[in-house]
Amino acid sequence: MKALVYKGPGKKSWEEVPDPVIAKPTDVIVKMAATTICGTDLHILKGDVPEVEVGRILGHEGIGVITEIGSGVTQLAVGDRVILACVSSCGRCSYCRQGLYSHCLDPEGTSGIGWIFGYLINGTQAEYVRVPFAENSVYKIPESISDAEGILLSDILPTGFEIGIQYGQVKPGDVVAVIGAGPVGLSTVMTSALYGPAKVIAIDLDDSRLTRAHDFGATDTVNSGDADWREQVLALTDGLGVDVAIEAVGIPQTFTMATQIVRPGGNVANIGVHGKPVELALNELWIKNLNISMGLVNTNTLGMLLKLVEGHKLPAEKFVTHEFSFDQMLEAYEVFSNAGEHQALKVLIH
Amino acid sequence: MKALVYKGPGKKSWEEVPDPVIAKPTDVIVKMAATTICGTDLHILKGDVPEVEVGRILGHEGIGVITEIGSGVTQLAVGDRVILACVSSCGRCSYCRQGLYSHCLDPEGTSGIGWIFGYLINGTQAEYVRVPFAENSVYKIPESISDAEGILLSDILPTGFEIGIQYGQVKPGDVVAVIGAGPVGLSTVMTSALYGPAKVIAIDLDDSRLTRAHDFGATDTVNSGDADWREQVLALTDGLGVDVAIEAVGIPQTFTMATQIVRPGGNVANIGVHGKPVELALNELWIKNLNISMGLVNTNTLGMLLKLVEGHKLPAEKFVTHEFSFDQMLEAYEVFSNAGEHQALKVLIH
Amino acid sequence: MKALVYKGPGKKSWEEVPDPVIAKPTDVIVKMAATTICGTDLHILKGDVPEVEVGRILGHEGIGVITEIGSGVTQLAVGDRVILACVSSCGRCSYCRQGLYSHCLDPEGTSGIGWIFGYLINGTQAEYVRVPFAENSVYKIPESISDAEGILLSDILPTGFEIGIQYGQVKPGDVVAVIGAGPVGLSTVMTSALYGPAKVIAIDLDDSRLTRAHDFGATDTVNSGDADWREQVLALTDGLGVDVAIEAVGIPQTFTMATQIVRPGGNVANIGVHGKPVELALNELWIKNLNISMGLVNTNTLGMLLKLVEGHKLPAEKFVTHEFSFDQMLEAYEVFSNAGEHQALKVLIH
Amino acid sequence: MKALVYKGPGKKSWEEVPDPVIAKPTDVIVKMAATTICGTDLHILKGDVPEVEVGRILGHEGIGVITEIGSGVTQLAVGDRVILACVSSCGRCSYCRQGLYSHCLDPEGTSGIGWIFGYLINGTQAEYVRVPFAENSVYKIPESISDAEGILLSDILPTGFEIGIQYGQVKPGDVVAVIGAGPVGLSTVMTSALYGPAKVIAIDLDDSRLTRAHDFGATDTVNSGDADWREQVLALTDGLGVDVAIEAVGIPQTFTMATQIVRPGGNVANIGVHGKPVELALNELWIKNLNISMGLVNTNTLGMLLKLVEGHKLPAEKFVTHEFSFDQMLEAYEVFSNAGEHQALKVLIH
Repeated sequence: MKALVYKGPGKKSWEEVPDPVIAKPTDVIVKMAATTICGTDLHILKGDVPEVEVGRILGHEGIGVITEIGSGVTQLAVGDRVILACVSSCGRCSYCRQGLYSHCLDPEGTSGIGWIFGYLINGTQAEYVRVPFAENSVYKIPESISDAEGILLSDILPTGFEIGIQYGQVKPGDVVAVIGAGPVGLSTVMTSALYGPAKVIAIDLDDSRLTRAHDFGATDTVNSGDADWREQVLALTDGLGVDVAIEAVGIPQTFTMATQIVRPGGNVANIGVHGKPVELALNELWIKNLNISMGLVNTNTLGMLLKLVEGHKLPAEKFVTHEFSFDQMLEAYEVFSNAGEHQALKVLIH
Repeated sequence: MKALVYKGPGKKSWEEVPDPVIAKPTDVIVKMAATTICGTDLHILKGDVPEVEVGRILGHEGIGVITEIGSGVTQLAVGDRVILACVSSCGRCSYCRQGLYSHCLDPEGTSGIGWIFGYLINGTQAEYVRVPFAENSVYKIPESISDAEGILLSDILPTGFEIGIQYGQVKPGDVVAVIGAGPVGLSTVMTSALYGPAKVIAIDLDDSRLTRAHDFGATDTVNSGDADWREQVLALTDGLGVDVAIEAVGIPQTFTMATQIVRPGGNVANIGVHGKPVELALNELWIKNLNISMGLVNTNTLGMLLKLVEGHKLPAEKFVTHEFSFDQMLEAYEVFSNAGEHQALKVLIH
Repeated sequence: MKALVYKGPGKKSWEEVPDPVIAKPTDVIVKMAATTICGTDLHILKGDVPEVEVGRILGHEGIGVITEIGSGVTQLAVGDRVILACVSSCGRCSYCRQGLYSHCLDPEGTSGIGWIFGYLINGTQAEYVRVPFAENSVYKIPESISDAEGILLSDILPTGFEIGIQYGQVKPGDVVAVIGAGPVGLSTVMTSALYGPAKVIAIDLDDSRLTRAHDFGATDTVNSGDADWREQVLALTDGLGVDVAIEAVGIPQTFTMATQIVRPGGNVANIGVHGKPVELALNELWIKNLNISMGLVNTNTLGMLLKLVEGHKLPAEKFVTHEFSFDQMLEAYEVFSNAGEHQALKVLIH
Repeated sequence: MKALVYKGPGKKSWEEVPDPVIAKPTDVIVKMAATTICGTDLHILKGDVPEVEVGRILGHEGIGVITEIGSGVTQLAVGDRVILACVSSCGRCSYCRQGLYSHCLDPEGTSGIGWIFGYLINGTQAEYVRVPFAENSVYKIPESISDAEGILLSDILPTGFEIGIQYGQVKPGDVVAVIGAGPVGLSTVMTSALYGPAKVIAIDLDDSRLTRAHDFGATDTVNSGDADWREQVLALTDGLGVDVAIEAVGIPQTFTMATQIVRPGGNVANIGVHGKPVELALNELWIKNLNISMGLVNTNTLGMLLKLVEGHKLPAEKFVTHEFSFDQMLEAYEVFSNAGEHQALKVLIH
């Protein structure tokens, strides 16, 4: 089969590789119908994630059809059309029993982190994929869900909803601020609607992204390049700050911004993947009765979000700005790597 | 001043009565700008609520302007435009500290139930009203909120949201069924949107009410006069039943219906005011891991719902089907008493 | 092997039967070290549970050692000492993912109820048992846990804790009343300590059971045969009633008692298995903001309770009043069937 | 009357000052029966809290009898024996309605922080105290509560319970670590019992404090001066870390320690008052699904804790190591300022 293979820092190839085979009784093999590229894949390609070995097939999002099942699989069958959760989970360990699939103790018997596709094992940017612990890690989907909708459910919609909205404890009537209007930030904006906020404020440096944020459900926008950006945010509240400030960038500055606009008793939800420590002004914040959350997606809401996409309650397809065939994988990378120039959010490769 | 006075079973009068005066340091006097009529007022007029004494001014919903404040009032001022919560609460007793204002232990030093307007003390269908424990029982509102929106916030929107949606623990992705598409049922349908359900099924015997339910946000409707009504409901789920079944009528039959359509692990939320005991099939239900809730509104979400109405997130004004002046109070009662014939939901008297 | 076999209403036999074999890749076989008898077994023997076929091996509690594993089992091994949860669960269906194992949709591909041992499949009163979906349905235990402690964790401790204490939403400072001081009621009394109640009132008709309740943690007791039993209970509160009233008997009268002693805003938790419908006085209760829960145990707290037993925080062994060998199975039934006469709570068969 | 007056950095005096008088209709005057000294008072005396003006009477804990009430006070009477909450709250603002008394918007019309005694207004180390918003800020107590028990309920028990245990989301079966075994840390250790933890590990540099921690309920102790202190803590868990790590010191090092011993999916609860920012290793922690909480006590559990102290469920009196008369106020400060030398926890001044 063909797959996108990591060849070391800065190098990748769309090349012929051996087909995957069933390795454990709980595995299935999926023929991919569609996949996509995530910002994390770009990080890996830069060489920022040294755990990824040369030769690894990248990608952790996708949709396809089961072509083979392991001997221990009883609830899935060849021919099932499924979404692959970006997180693999055994469903039986103490973490999985809590729904904390992101910290599954046995995704392949080793790592203690549920994200392994395109990282510790071969991923989804390929014609076929071996899926471990498949019964807990794939979701059967009806024909009415398109490939475009499906790939959003692998990672980005659950990430925005679980780590931004749920961890941020958004509740009806809240004023919510989302810092960073990229794909994950927009996922947060879109899924915030599931808890009835009064206002959703998108904050970014790029006006074209802010304009697009309105289309995803933001009621207000603030350009954080403005000297008075904080005052603009507070003016959209009762003056005390937002109920929930969501960080969707991953740098110290934006994390600090979140702590500066949240009201006493409010929540800061960090979604961003950080490369450096941040300074937390506990000397000022200890008295503010804040809650700060962070985490890797569990995809334990994937099934629920699927129902909402199916019922046209979440317009997931809005995220897909470009489409490619599998053979155009490298072009897809080219566009996604220069997302700003192409106004790209998510690319559908099918 | 003029007021609507209960003169004994079946009798009422719009007549001249003495103006109210401040009785306690925590009171305020409000000049009413608008009021409305509730089904409970009709019950009282029938003589079904013997605690109501002859001579009592009826009504527990309304909006107006403060004209006088007691000596202990420091956070309200003459001239403030306010919504009157239908429930009076001292804000200091053990129940109020939990937000359970409906069971305030000291609404007027006696009763132990927070609903006293138009019941144990004079109510809001009058030109002026004395409001006890005003600082905890009225809400200041901006000019952008209309009188029509305001009266919905006194009782009906909080009732549908708190006792139907919150007590029913509606969560994103749920299938919710609301039995009874009258004003309270429609309030439940409308406010269910604040928790992102996948489907909202309105159930009623009257097709015209079901048609209207769509306009309030129902995704599906079922006429419970159909022999296969239950099968129709189950067919809108995965076959196991709805996540939340909400009773908004108040008779044994509809309560039983709710228990027959709810899935294992689901919730039954009773909003209806019942006049008779019901039979609960614990022999069948004990094993179903259900939760059954019930209660009088607390209005502890009034301030939050106000923000959503202000931000045009809840189209409260849809409930107002007829308008009258204060002098047309008896005509307003005539229309509301024959709501079916007039297709009336709520009447605005201002 | 030898097993206790149901031979039709009123008849049972401790007899030679074929050894169980692995039937599905997710099965294991366990050699039982200890089992016990539950009130449900007595109901089945009376013929009250017609789904139970003649020839069925009874019992749903037990502890033992794995002697064989199915081909799909990767997290358990031959030789593991395990507790068998009374509820079997696949761990992958939508109910299992919520921790609602009691409604597993696939305990053996058919029933939609997680309790199948000694009911729909052969049970634990035997020398060997086939355990379906073993990875989700057994718990590995350290040597420091005795057999006596272990059998309590199969059913009775989780039942009291999950269905009484957790569903009843007991919280620190609460006054909790437990109606019925049999094994399940005492389990509720004991596990209530995990949420720091101010008072735990045991209510029963039998003074010797009430005396024993003190030993399990009750702070107060009331004999419900007293004409003023309700006044006695209210006198142990601030006069408004208990925060949580737990029904652990299973008859209409005791359910009604629970609704009569609970305060406004409180919780009624039904644990009892009911054979008849009950009358629910919604005409009086609708306004009391109550919550009524019920259900079959999920055993999703078994692992947590195990840690507390291991740390000597829950003196589980107190429940074991009599011990028998496997060959004395019929004597064990004799004693347990006449529990009152023998002051028996749980019998350990090992 | 006599009072302890702040005379500028490093200076204090026990001197004659004017008696307090009712200033607002919601005030009461309390004749103090007992008070105590808090670490915060020592900070103020060092000059670390510049908002405190010279001439301020210090102290925010105490118990006494009401001698005078304002005209708006209806639920308290002269002669009532009361505990003074360390936080003053109006009970009516949006924060108070959520129980977030620590951020009351109107404690005296100005500050937006509920802690004002001995900080923005005169405090409790005096013979008489003016208590603003008394109906929401004092708690009536029975004679069975001693003065020693009462002063613990003003601040320290609610602080440990609310900010450590509740914000830390301790639940039955958890392993809890408390860093810092001073008075607040020990309050956390003691009140952790209300949520049934499996283990409570006290961590401190001082062995004598660790020994005492056992007496307050710690199951295990670790001296953080040991090079392998972290390994010792992890060895008391399943190797993954504690469920809840509570910081009760207030320096960057101890906050970092908390983040180093908490397991994925766990909680870090900061109680300490910090004078400097801390470094938060988001680069490592973003993926760990942690929750970090912090805050000033609300005292919204004071009434609940009072019931537990009354029922001898919390041995509050253990905290009192030394007793003084009011005239020995300066000696009391001397002992408390050198707590280590005197093995002092809390001093009772009465």
